[in-house]
Amino acid sequence: MKRALPLILAAAASAAAAPAIAQDTAPSGAVQAPDVPPLFAAETARAREFVDEMIAAGITVPVPADPGGGYTHEQHKRNFRAMFLASHLYNLSDDQRYFVFVRDMLLEYADLYPTLEDHPARSNQNPGRLFWQVLNDAMWLVHAIQAYEVIRDDLDSESRDRIDNDVFRRAAHFLSVESEATFNRIHNHATWATAAVGMTGYVLGDDELVRRALYGTQGDGESGFLRQTELLFSPDGYYTEGPYYQRFALLPFMVFAGAIERNEPERAIFEHRDGILRKALLATIQLTYGGYFFPFNDAIRDKSLNTAELYQGVAIGYSVTRDPSLLGIAQFQNRTMITPAGLQVAEAIEQGLAEEFPFRSMVLRDGPNGQQGAVAIMRNGSEPGHMALVAKNASQGMGHGHFDKLSWQLYDNGHEIVRDYGAARFLNIEAKEGGRYLPENESWAKQTVAHNTLVVNQQSHFYGDRDLADQSAPTQQCFGVDDELQFSVASIDDAYPRESVTMERMLAMVEIDGLSAPIALDVLRAQGDGALQFDLPLHYAGHIMRLGFDVDRNTAGRPILGDANGYQHIWVDGRARPDGEQSLMTWLLDGRFYTYRFVQSGELEVILGETGANDPSFNLRREPIAIQRVSGTDRATFVSLVEPHGLYDGATEQTIDSDSQIASLHHIRSGTTDIAVIETITGAQVAVAVSWDSNAEAEHSATVNGQELRWQGCVARISLSRGES
Amino acid sequence: MKRALPLILAAAASAAAAPAIAQDTAPSGAVQAPDVPPLFAAETARAREFVDEMIAAGITVPVPADPGGGYTHEQHKRNFRAMFLASHLYNLSDDQRYFVFVRDMLLEYADLYPTLEDHPARSNQNPGRLFWQVLNDAMWLVHAIQAYEVIRDDLDSESRDRIDNDVFRRAAHFLSVESEATFNRIHNHATWATAAVGMTGYVLGDDELVRRALYGTQGDGESGFLRQTELLFSPDGYYTEGPYYQRFALLPFMVFAGAIERNEPERAIFEHRDGILRKALLATIQLTYGGYFFPFNDAIRDKSLNTAELYQGVAIGYSVTRDPSLLGIAQFQNRTMITPAGLQVAEAIEQGLAEEFPFRSMVLRDGPNGQQGAVAIMRNGSEPGHMALVAKNASQGMGHGHFDKLSWQLYDNGHEIVRDYGAARFLNIEAKEGGRYLPENESWAKQTVAHNTLVVNQQSHFYGDRDLADQSAPTQQCFGVDDELQFSVASIDDAYPRESVTMERMLAMVEIDGLSAPIALDVLRAQGDGALQFDLPLHYAGHIMRLGFDVDRNTAGRPILGDANGYQHIWVDGRARPDGEQSLMTWLLDGRFYTYRFVQSGELEVILGETGANDPSFNLRREPIAIQRVSGTDRATFVSLVEPHGLYDGATEQTIDSDSQIASLHHIRSGTTDIAVIETITGAQVAVAVSWDSNAEAEHSATVNGQELRWQGCVARISLSRGES
Repeated sequence: MKRALPLILAAAASAAAAPAIAQDTAPSGAVQAPDVPPLFAAETARAREFVDEMIAAGITVPVPADPGGGYTHEQHKRNFRAMFLASHLYNLSDDQRYFVFVRDMLLEYADLYPTLEDHPARSNQNPGRLFWQVLNDAMWLVHAIQAYEVIRDDLDSESRDRIDNDVFRRAAHFLSVESEATFNRIHNHATWATAAVGMTGYVLGDDELVRRALYGTQGDGESGFLRQTELLFSPDGYYTEGPYYQRFALLPFMVFAGAIERNEPERAIFEHRDGILRKALLATIQLTYGGYFFPFNDAIRDKSLNTAELYQGVAIGYSVTRDPSLLGIAQFQNRTMITPAGLQVAEAIEQGLAEEFPFRSMVLRDGPNGQQGAVAIMRNGSEPGHMALVAKNASQGMGHGHFDKLSWQLYDNGHEIVRDYGAARFLNIEAKEGGRYLPENESWAKQTVAHNTLVVNQQSHFYGDRDLADQSAPTQQCFGVDDELQFSVASIDDAYPRESVTMERMLAMVEIDGLSAPIALDVLRAQGDGALQFDLPLHYAGHIMRLGFDVDRNTAGRPILGDANGYQHIWVDGRARPDGEQSLMTWLLDGRFYTYRFVQSGELEVILGETGANDPSFNLRREPIAIQRVSGTDRATFVSLVEPHGLYDGATEQTIDSDSQIASLHHIRSGTTDIAVIETITGAQVAVAVSWDSNAEAEHSATVNGQELRWQGCVARISLSRGES
Repeated sequence: MKRALPLILAAAASAAAAPAIAQDTAPSGAVQAPDVPPLFAAETARAREFVDEMIAAGITVPVPADPGGGYTHEQHKRNFRAMFLASHLYNLSDDQRYFVFVRDMLLEYADLYPTLEDHPARSNQNPGRLFWQVLNDAMWLVHAIQAYEVIRDDLDSESRDRIDNDVFRRAAHFLSVESEATFNRIHNHATWATAAVGMTGYVLGDDELVRRALYGTQGDGESGFLRQTELLFSPDGYYTEGPYYQRFALLPFMVFAGAIERNEPERAIFEHRDGILRKALLATIQLTYGGYFFPFNDAIRDKSLNTAELYQGVAIGYSVTRDPSLLGIAQFQNRTMITPAGLQVAEAIEQGLAEEFPFRSMVLRDGPNGQQGAVAIMRNGSEPGHMALVAKNASQGMGHGHFDKLSWQLYDNGHEIVRDYGAARFLNIEAKEGGRYLPENESWAKQTVAHNTLVVNQQSHFYGDRDLADQSAPTQQCFGVDDELQFSVASIDDAYPRESVTMERMLAMVEIDGLSAPIALDVLRAQGDGALQFDLPLHYAGHIMRLGFDVDRNTAGRPILGDANGYQHIWVDGRARPDGEQSLMTWLLDGRFYTYRFVQSGELEVILGETGANDPSFNLRREPIAIQRVSGTDRATFVSLVEPHGLYDGATEQTIDSDSQIASLHHIRSGTTDIAVIETITGAQVAVAVSWDSNAEAEHSATVNGQELRWQGCVARISLSRGES
């Protein structure tokens, strides 16, 4: 086999006298060294505690039986974690107990593996051997092969042959040949599989496995790891399935790339496609707020930068790029790997090299060529609690995508204020369909009404047809960032092909004189054929404090809103037909008030509701919704804003500005442009003019209250008066 | 006038060369001293920032107009805070700006005060002058008089006379003579009023005001501050209105006591009634979990040890008692006062004298003689996240009391798992009825069904009649704490006089071999006359993971449970008639699972629901409820337990023991005793035997599965088998 090369330079230097370094492992004895940085020492201690417990409990390699979250599933997961960590502890300490543990466990797997057939708890497709789905088998192999690489040279030849043949060759064969369909996909499951098989190839010295991993089973490069790096990421490093799966895929991408770099540095894998893997790492981090990933598409909301994938990604990424802002992320994580890359991170932090990660406003284009929409992120800072607006103008994102074109989210004060539901799933909880996606993921979470975007005729985008959805994507028309205005404009004209609906949406973060925070402004216009019903839901978080309008309340019986496409899951609390300038509602969340204000047009109805209807197994979270509805027309323009204001401090009994500080919101249509005029209670007046013209050079004008406004490009903020101070 | 004496010894010593010390104020110059402890320096800086902003904004003393939370209300609150802090900053720094600020603001009040009549936003009773209710006027005076004491000697005589006469004498007269009914109550409002008037008496040298404050307007000691210390606290320092108001009343009790100690040390006020004020301070702290007060009775849930009342209470308490565990609380608060007592706290912390506060299991008796029930607290530790069970066996607690006899709460992992709703009120939020108690406080929060206790015939205890409720209280029959069992037994026989219902309840925290945490065990038995309906609600927190029984679900329309006494606020999600040993439900909260398990008796119905029906103004939080119902019988025994188990970590995708680790719960009636038998899935078997006999010496026996159990006293835990390890 090709020998693994030391990846790390600084660590390698200090390890000159140490035994030959297998793969990404720290110099022996580092664990005892008194000058190991605290972060690394803590990581080693944590690993030791876990592995020592596993050793004390005795090796347990059960016959596979349970689905996700069940006993055998969790035990095999624990086993691969334990082998991975034990091998590194062995490398760091030379402690034979760790060597023996990994060896003996792999020998048990060598007994078990040849007896396995499809997993008894398989669901319909892609069954695994050790786990209910092949994906988990790939994850097992990614970790186990890294452990094996460390101990393999120290094995007697009989053990080595048995483990080579009865565990790793079989597992690699299973993942590549027997599960060829999965292996050759352009999909995160295939990234895990190719990484597992490719790394197995390097360790066993089997070039065929490496070739298969890099170029697919056909060897033509139309599939395999390299093609995945080209098709799954946009030129900005955005992964088309969205942040949750971007995080998940990052580990095999980074770990296998690290192995390629060590074994075949001439491939310059980290420079491939203009450094796409580095970009992917940074984009993954940018797709977070308060450390948590934006939960759009199928996403478990618990996932944050504090996950194994990101510890690994940050460590390998830092070793390649020396980007000091990655150290800032490692500090936030307060975790790293017990590998040379991890040691390098810990040492650099100790040397004070860490810098704050530059969270910033940006567009991340989607699609291999960057032409399938985008995710636009607007932030008013990067400190904890800053305000962030996410415009989800990306493509469908494959099977885990939601029918949520042009949807958005708003974060403030550490919370998601305008929410995305994420996935309906309780990962690894056996009582919840074995931890798999729940039926409500299809019937609710993926449906358009579960998102903050336009629903026509109570149908989901693309009529909920994924094949149709895969064929198109929104267009990110423009994006701009300056001190007082950040904006995104996007459009899509084939989300409802039968009704020929075109949708355009401008989302902006706008500073208004005298307000304590920017507002989030939303101008959405749509046009189609015939008498249509347009619903614009807002999934907000908080407790209603004030309604500007009378609501016909369902107080003694709670009906449902509809019977399909997610509407069957909405309880209706009441309906209203606001008029005048009191089309507003204020809610309270964690000591801060938010007012949602919208322009009342003639036939606007507002529906207040909550999720949780038609949910026989209590699978859904119960969350409030407000829907603006316009019916019986071929077009509609929704002009709305969310205004964060005031504070409520129950401890000190201080309440400030619990009511909206805005006096009015008006909408003016002038030619093909739309202008929103916001006036505060102290008289400041700001117009936000939208030309719907992506030509940044084009000049536009409109007349507002007898005053002529002129601007250039897509969107402009024009101060009409400053108001009293 | 009598001169205020320096309260503090250590601080006074180092201030020997400083100007004469008025009241509880730190030595001049301390704010600049480089050796001021960080806690004190931070407090001073915070005060300075606030006061400097107030000075920069200019003095604003508006004509009273708004109710709680409105502009004038909040401004007058800011003013008294600013005067209090500015006077202390003046004392610390000799900075004339602070002197001038307090003086000029008081002169503005001298202009305003004589023009005032009843507040325009008064509700029916007890109107204030500056505020909508007299209570807030008393709070204003408590703070303003402390500020005035600091600056009064430095005023020219004209200003002093104007402020003496047009502010303080008028305010004291208003609170004592014009508001005599409030002033002479035995109630926290009267504590604020008497403290305000008494301290004004000391500062103005007006012995009549002091006498009135101490003994009531009649001077007979049947009312007034001293009587309040005798009647409002139990011998254990429990305040009959409950923790929320105990916290609130603590400030005037401690501050006025501090003033009495300085002006009339011969009264030995802190020794009065066997040191009742010290006991009250310690009891206040014991009535918390994770820093938050148990929210039973009318209580705002935001209130924690981090409130001004407790900063003041801890500082004064430490100066009197030198109890090092109070320093532990100050460390938790990370706050103190900018007074000599606060400096002493900060210095003692700096010297490393702080000790952990000994949160522990205890009974706090209620009633002036300790004979009106009790609050029983069981804890399995004191570290963050420990488990705590609170048995609310106290008396009604006056007008802010709830109809919740023998109710309970359970805390674990930092959360309230079995919940008390607290008050239906949004303090100081004008949109919510001016920040006052909401109608739903009467219709829901006070009703029995809003609590975790027995409801008979869908009526609240005492039929919701406070006068009736005031006439009786539960009896705390017994309480015990040992390693493997903590228990409380209480009873009440006149909560439903018309149906002659007697209720007895045992609540226990029980260790079971092999379980990761104790269980909370609940045995409640009731007996009355006729065919009754017994409902036992459990207000839990979490998302349902598993139901052991089939539920007839209301999925497409949600009816209400009843039409009065709180039942009108409950949406019904479904009904079940569990049988066999699957009478259980499991929910998930913040990474931990909880299973509620109950013994299925023949006619048991289970109702699953949620609050929020008949709530036209969206005033209620929406929270889940499970109700055990037995109908058409004159007696019922409910045997239930809550078992915390397992963990769910979405970040690492680890799920452990998501299903209950208990195999069965059985109930055996033997003679007059009740025995609960818990068996785990590994075979450990524990019996908890309840004799319902408070005689600790009495011997009891019962036969369970052919095995004879013998025990002494109220409750015993008997291990029947240890199970597999």
